[in-house]
Amino acid sequence: MTQALFPTITDKGALERGDALAPRFDANGLVAAIAQHAETGEILMLGYMNAESLARTLEIGEAVYFSRSRNEIWHKGATSGQIQTVLELRVDCDQDCVLLKVLPQGDGGACHVGFRSCFYRVMVDGKLVERP
Amino acid sequence: MTQALFPTITDKGALERGDALAPRFDANGLVAAIAQHAETGEILMLGYMNAESLARTLEIGEAVYFSRSRNEIWHKGATSGQIQTVLELRVDCDQDCVLLKVLPQGDGGACHVGFRSCFYRVMVDGKLVERP
Repeated sequence: MTQALFPTITDKGALERGDALAPRFDANGLVAAIAQHAETGEILMLGYMNAESLARTLEIGEAVYFSRSRNEIWHKGATSGQIQTVLELRVDCDQDCVLLKVLPQGDGGACHVGFRSCFYRVMVDGKLVERP
Repeated sequence: MTQALFPTITDKGALERGDALAPRFDANGLVAAIAQHAETGEILMLGYMNAESLARTLEIGEAVYFSRSRNEIWHKGATSGQIQTVLELRVDCDQDCVLLKVLPQGDGGACHVGFRSCFYRVMVDGKLVERP
């Protein structure tokens, strides 16, 4: 039912160059969603969205993901206060990924571990080093 | 076999705060890989990597993905010239996504449609508008 929130486009040209948002949800009904800080350009997190959470994101202008671990709609920040105000929503060429440019609210963080971004570790000489 | 290229860590603390790269490959053996331009911060594309392509990326310092459509290892740029030199590789908190900071070679593009980034369309008033 939720899939019907968006059209399905099979024509490659229309999918890649058309003006209709027609996400190609995977076998689990999800597309990837990258959250990027709208001002700093920092990548904050990668989440997933089903049709309902994507539609809700567009409706309220705040990031709503689908939690794969909890198997439920997840309005980011509803409990933590780390609401992500969406300034821009982009889609990639084959429409299986969206990019959100967001302003994090609350304490400005996005990661449950306590860092601003989930990508707080970098590979250096074969080891991960925390470098937020 | 390829999974053995990286350790498997089930302890949450070690997974999130440890120094071992222990990607949590999904049921298809893949993790998501975001490519971000190292200088401009622009998101170029989202790809996927299996253990072999991730190991190869770390080995040669160029982005090597796994093509889900062709079901094969994909050394980005091998045919197009759009090699992505990897300056930094990060992993997220639960290690199911990597972030590559790259310098695109060749014509500087990343998208097969011809744009610099795959995210060349933005949602405006319910329609997608090309705004590279």
